[in-house]
This record gives sequence, structure tokens and C-alpha cells, in this order.
Amino acid sequence: MNITDVITLLEEKKLITLRSNFEEMHPADIAALFSELIERNFPEASLILLYRVMSKEVAAESFTYMEPSAQETLINSFTDRELSEVLDELYVDDAVDMVEEMPANVVSRILKNADPAMRSQINNLLKYPVDSAGSIMTTEFVYFRTGKTISECFDRIRSVGIMKETVYTCYVTDKRKLVGAVSLLEMLTADPSMLIEDIAESNIITVNTLDDKESVARTLSKYDLHAIPVVDNEDRIVGIVTFDDAIDVIEEENTEDFSKMAAVAPLDESYFKTTVWHHARSRLPWLLFLMLSATLTGFVISKYEDAFEKVAILVTFMPMIMGTAGNSGSQSSTLIIRGMAVDEINLRDFLKVFWKEFRVALICGAVLGVVNGLRIYYFEKAGALIAVTVGLSIVGVVILAKIVGSMLPMLAKKIHLDPAIMATPMISTILDTCSLLIYFSLAVLILHV
Amino acid sequence: MNITDVITLLEEKKLITLRSNFEEMHPADIAALFSELIERNFPEASLILLYRVMSKEVAAESFTYMEPSAQETLINSFTDRELSEVLDELYVDDAVDMVEEMPANVVSRILKNADPAMRSQINNLLKYPVDSAGSIMTTEFVYFRTGKTISECFDRIRSVGIMKETVYTCYVTDKRKLVGAVSLLEMLTADPSMLIEDIAESNIITVNTLDDKESVARTLSKYDLHAIPVVDNEDRIVGIVTFDDAIDVIEEENTEDFSKMAAVAPLDESYFKTTVWHHARSRLPWLLFLMLSATLTGFVISKYEDAFEKVAILVTFMPMIMGTAGNSGSQSSTLIIRGMAVDEINLRDFLKVFWKEFRVALICGAVLGVVNGLRIYYFEKAGALIAVTVGLSIVGVVILAKIVGSMLPMLAKKIHLDPAIMATPMISTILDTCSLLIYFSLAVLILHV
Repeated sequence: MNITDVITLLEEKKLITLRSNFEEMHPADIAALFSELIERNFPEASLILLYRVMSKEVAAESFTYMEPSAQETLINSFTDRELSEVLDELYVDDAVDMVEEMPANVVSRILKNADPAMRSQINNLLKYPVDSAGSIMTTEFVYFRTGKTISECFDRIRSVGIMKETVYTCYVTDKRKLVGAVSLLEMLTADPSMLIEDIAESNIITVNTLDDKESVARTLSKYDLHAIPVVDNEDRIVGIVTFDDAIDVIEEENTEDFSKMAAVAPLDESYFKTTVWHHARSRLPWLLFLMLSATLTGFVISKYEDAFEKVAILVTFMPMIMGTAGNSGSQSSTLIIRGMAVDEINLRDFLKVFWKEFRVALICGAVLGVVNGLRIYYFEKAGALIAVTVGLSIVGVVILAKIVGSMLPMLAKKIHLDPAIMATPMISTILDTCSLLIYFSLAVLILHV
Repeated sequence: MNITDVITLLEEKKLITLRSNFEEMHPADIAALFSELIERNFPEASLILLYRVMSKEVAAESFTYMEPSAQETLINSFTDRELSEVLDELYVDDAVDMVEEMPANVVSRILKNADPAMRSQINNLLKYPVDSAGSIMTTEFVYFRTGKTISECFDRIRSVGIMKETVYTCYVTDKRKLVGAVSLLEMLTADPSMLIEDIAESNIITVNTLDDKESVARTLSKYDLHAIPVVDNEDRIVGIVTFDDAIDVIEEENTEDFSKMAAVAPLDESYFKTTVWHHARSRLPWLLFLMLSATLTGFVISKYEDAFEKVAILVTFMPMIMGTAGNSGSQSSTLIIRGMAVDEINLRDFLKVFWKEFRVALICGAVLGVVNGLRIYYFEKAGALIAVTVGLSIVGVVILAKIVGSMLPMLAKKIHLDPAIMATPMISTILDTCSLLIYFSLAVLILHV
């Protein structure tokens, strides 16, 4: 059922058809449909009517998949009854994400309608720092105390499992300390009368509540776990992070890196949800900073003014040289930044990277320099000396660019800055100045201007 | 146990200690340890000895986590016996990945030692196009024929589950057609005497064997599935893609996009595993292309030579104007490319994007232009007309840059090119020329040079 079907069915008051169609759809698709309606400024009254057409379960389920903006619109027209129905459907970590997005008045209403247990859990999770494992974990995991038999554990799963985010890996605790993890499959294939701790795996990969969520996600992916237990400083299990949250974290982090590397302050909303003003605000600071730092190149040029006043053709090669420097540099910086992000490259590889980039630069620089020198000599008829000047400059700037491009991101990390800010725009602004210096000083040297 | 411990223990022939230490480690960490040893050119003989120290299970398990290069080294010194032991441990999809990486002679040896069932499955999977769902799926999923009771299904899980990649979502088939999916939790909480099809979910998210693996991964993540069934054109289930493979796909695709957007041909190996020559080969083509297309800027400049010979100071602002154009453009192109990659932006949003970027450009351009104009007027004392010329140029190039930067990637997608190739380097090379044209024609207009 696509959006136009919905609208027509709604206009024709075919509510029963609507209801049954919704039953057929996946909650995520229903959610998408609602966001689209909101984008088209569909009247809120009809929106909430549409929501009420759905069966309680479908409605609540699809609510959990909606974007914050859509959720807020609905919550505002919810009865307290509907709100608490929805909250019962939510896993605590989803509820927390929701609360984090909402304005204060909505938040207080959410907390008022959440049952006491969930309310305390939400408040608890909200205490963890942003981007920490604690802030993304869910407290809905299944654990067994030591001393229970496997069949007892199965009873527990049957009784509580349905409210838990996953039951496929369960945890064994001894005085709240995490002592083991056991997969449901192992439980199924073991003798039901055995004690749970006898089949549980005792050396377990865990993360701390304060660990960075990105490293948590990568750990989960490294060990192919579908949930990773989060423990506090006393090794007590306080929650788990499941694979689906890990995937979201990885994608968010990647989107953030893409933005930073293009000198855009990361947006918290999607491209279209972000207002024009907010877009401008997120782009202007870097543009301003980079534009003003580009005045440096101006100084360099004015310093060599007489040089290109004598040999005007020198000016025509400036953009090509600066461009080549920028491109060579961004190649290196991007590879290094990405390599560090996925833990392929560590700070201790400093020298290895330097040596590798230097050799790559030699090859690239030589090829580019020769090609360009010959082109200038044969096609632009600019004279051998000019050709040599430009050719050598290219070699020089490529080597410089790859060294600067690869070292600056590592330096940034070394001093605990985000390596991503040392990406293309930053690097090329720095390289513009350096490459002009190389170019003009070579010109003075070779052409005696 | 870290690498030095291993080496010392090996030298002191403390093999029993080694063996028991390995038992304590996670296979993924053992694998990492082996790759590190290989990087340090640890003698192959000692490497295979180290491998044989481990218990059969641990050895085979950790082998599955190793990098292709490490696997190849070991396979070469494996006895056929050891090789087939490892192959028994592998899931078919891992085996396929392995085969795809290995040289022909190794491949034939692998296939020779795989049991007939696996051999045929490997050959089968190898037939699917690269980057297709078929090429990354595993054929080890659990399915039940309709008509079975839940308790019968549990027996099946107990007997075959241990060899399957996941048992937590099982599939119901009728004459090999996929008719339902059921979670192990639902089976646990239902009455064992019921028929499986009665509790199975009948409207299922599936993908086709030929679907692109990236879209498969995103579908899985969109619906928070931990496995997604892969069906052929007759709706027969032929495999599943599990969340861990999906995460790997997402990360690969992101790494590829980062490379492409920095004008680097994607590498198939990690940064350090890639040789200097290969690095150079993957970077040179774009550098060459971009360098040569930069000659265009040369033509523009020489066309206006007399302009800046009269007003030399004009030259000093060239880099700043080109830089600002490049940065503004890459901001837009990156946001659009990423937005399309994660399906937030579609081609039909063409006009919406245009209108949004245009307004953002107006704001950014105005601010940058005014700031720069005032700076030039008050600090560089370059005269009002120059200030106006540069200021207006900035406004012009920012607007142009954001339009070009946002439209070109969408255009690329429209004509079925990878949008990522329209990223920073490409955009800024194009913009260099355009921005110089704007700058100089404004100069001629305002300064009458």
C-alpha cells in the first residue's frame, strides 16, 4: 500500500481496508509512510486518525521505527493511554533514544507515562555520557544465577524472553558479577538437567559502560557477536549492545566522518530534515576559517610578484600545481584517516606510514612531473627551462603533499584531536601555500627571475 | 598472551603452556597474533608448529578468522588431513571467500579436500556475480517442511543446528518455496504439538540472489533482521545473509566510498598489505587525469594575462577564490553522495536539493563575500573596487560551487555512474576553471582592465 492508496482510502473512509492493509505491512514501512505524510504536511488530525486505525500492536510496533520528528508529532496528539501503550512496546534503549531527541515538555510526559521500572531504567541510562556504551545499551537481557539447571533456565526464557531484546545469548551471573555467556543453541543441545554454568563459556568478550560506542560496535563486529555484554567497573553486567544498534552506530560514525572530512560540522538530522539555516551554520565556520587562512597564499604570491611580472606564463601553472598538491595530499590523508578509523593503522605505525607514502610519492611525483614537463615543452612551447621548473615543482609538491597528508592526521590523533578534521580542505589549504613556495623558489633558482 | 610471550614460550619449547594459553584466547585474537607473526616474517616452519600446538578445534576456529595472506601461508604447509579438518570447520560462505582470495593451485587443493557436499556448494556460490547477494550468502540455514510439528522441528534443530550459521530464525518451505519464517523464541513459547506453519510469519522480507550486496545489507539493517533469506526467481530459498556478513559489507562499501571520493581506486587489501607499486597504480590515473584537466585553468589565465599584468594584485586572490569554490563544492557533493548512499536522497529529490543548496549558498556566499571584501578593503588597502571585485566573485563562486557540487553527483547516478567519482577532486578541478572565469570577467567588468 503506497502513500496515495492510504490517502484515498482515508478520504473514502475505508478504515477497515486500511486496518487490514496495515496488518500486511512491515512496521518499518508503515513508519516510512508516516514520515512521508508528515513531510507533505498531512494534517495532524488525519495523521492521528490514521494511527488509531491500526491495531494496538501494529501501531505501537511501527511507532518504534518512526523518526523523532514523526514520533513527536504523534506523541503531542496521543492520549496518555496511547502513550503508555507505546512505551510498553518500546525496548528501554529505544525509549532512551526517543527521550534524548524530545523537547523537555514531551520528555516529562513520556516519563510520567512509563511504568516505574522503565522510568528508573531510562533515567539510569540517561546518566551515561553521550557516545558511551552505557548510552546505547539495552537493559533487557536474559541472565541466570549460577546453580540453576538448564531446564529451569528454559522456563525463565519462556516467561521473560518475550520482553527481552535478545534471548539467543544469555548470561550467567554470580552475585551480579558476570561469570559466563551461553547461547540458546548450546542450551538446546545440552542435557536439560545440567547446571547452566557447566555449559556456559567463561572467558567472555565484554565492554565497559564508559567505552566509546564506536569501539564497542567494532568489537562486536570483530568477534561476530550478535550481542556484547556491558559491565561496570565491578564486572557486574548492566546491559548489552545488540548487533542492530551496532550497525546503526557504525553508519552514524561513517556519516559523521564523511561530513567532517568535507569540512561540514556533523548534522544530527538527515539532509532534508536539516533547515537551510542549520546547513549554513554547519558549513560556514570551516569555509570562513579556510578562506582566511588562504590569505597566506596571497602573501607568498605578492612576495614573488616581480617573478611572474617578468615571466607571466608562470601564473598559468599555479592552479595545476596547487591542484595536484591538494589531490595527492587528500589521497594520503583519506587512506590514513580511514585506516585509523577501522583500526588498521595505529600511531605506532608512524614510521611505516611515512616510509610507504614517501616511496609512493616518489613514483607518482616522477610520473606526473615528467608527463607534465614534456607536455609543456612540446605542446605549450614554453621553453625547456619553464618545463623543467614546472616538472620539478610537481615532483616536489607531490612528495610534500603525501608526507603532510599522511602525517597530519596521525599527529592530530596523537594530540587527541579527531583525525578527520585534517582531511582534504585543511590539507589542501596548507599545501596551497607550501606548493607555491616550492614552485616560485624553483622558478627563481632556475629562471633567475 | 601477547606476541613476545608466544615467541619466548616457543623458544623454550613450553608447548603445553602454549596450548593451554591458546585455549583461553578468542580465535579472532589468535588469528590477529598469526598475522602479526607473518608480518614480522616469522619462519613458516615455526608458524605451522605453532598452529599444530593448538587443539584441533581451536586451530580450525582461529583459521577461519585469519586474513587471506595468513591462510595461504598455512595452507601451503598443511597436510591434506589438516586442510580438510579446517574445511569442516568453515561455513560455506567463509570457504567461498577464502577460495576467491587464493591462487589457482591452492584453490584446486582446497576443492580436492572439501567434502563433496561442500565442494558443490562452493562451486555453486562461486557462480553468482561479484557483489551479488548470492556471492555473500551462506547455504547453512535451517528450514522445515510444512506439516511438521514444533517438537519435530526442535529435534531437527538439535540434530543439524550445530552445523548451521544461525538457528535463531528458521524458515518454512513448501516444495522448496519459502512460505514462512519463525524465530526460535516463538517456537520455544508455543505449544510443541502445533504445526510449524501455524506460528510462522508468512509475510517475509526477502532478497533475490542477484540483488546488490550493499542494498541487501541495508535492508537487513533497516528491518533489524539478524538474517535475511535469499530466494531465486522461483521464490525458492537458496541461502541467507547473516548480520555479521552484512556489517562487513557495509564497512567495505564505506571504505570503498572514502577511497573513490579521494580519487583513489579502491584497494582490495588493507593499507599495509598493499604494495607501494599497487598504491601508486591506484592513485596515479586520477592524479594524471586531474592534472591534465587543470590545463584548462591555464588557458583561462593566459586569456586574461593582460588583466593581471595591469593589476598584479589580482593574482594574489586567485588561490583563495579557487579554494573557497573547491571547499564549498565538496561540502555539497559529499553530503549528497552520502545521502544517496544511505538512501536518504533519491534522484526524484533533484529540485528539492537544488533549491535547498541554492539558499544555503546564498547565505554562505553573502557572509564570506562581505567578510572578505571588508578584510581586503581595511587590511590589504587594495582599494574599494578590488574589494568589491573579490567580494562579488566569492558570492558568485560559492553559489556556483554548491549547485555544481550537489547536481553533478545526482547527474552521475542518473546516467548510472558511481556518484562517488564526482567528489572533491573532480568537483574542485571543474570549479577551479569556472571560478577563475567568474573572477576575471568580474575584474574586467568592474576594473575595466
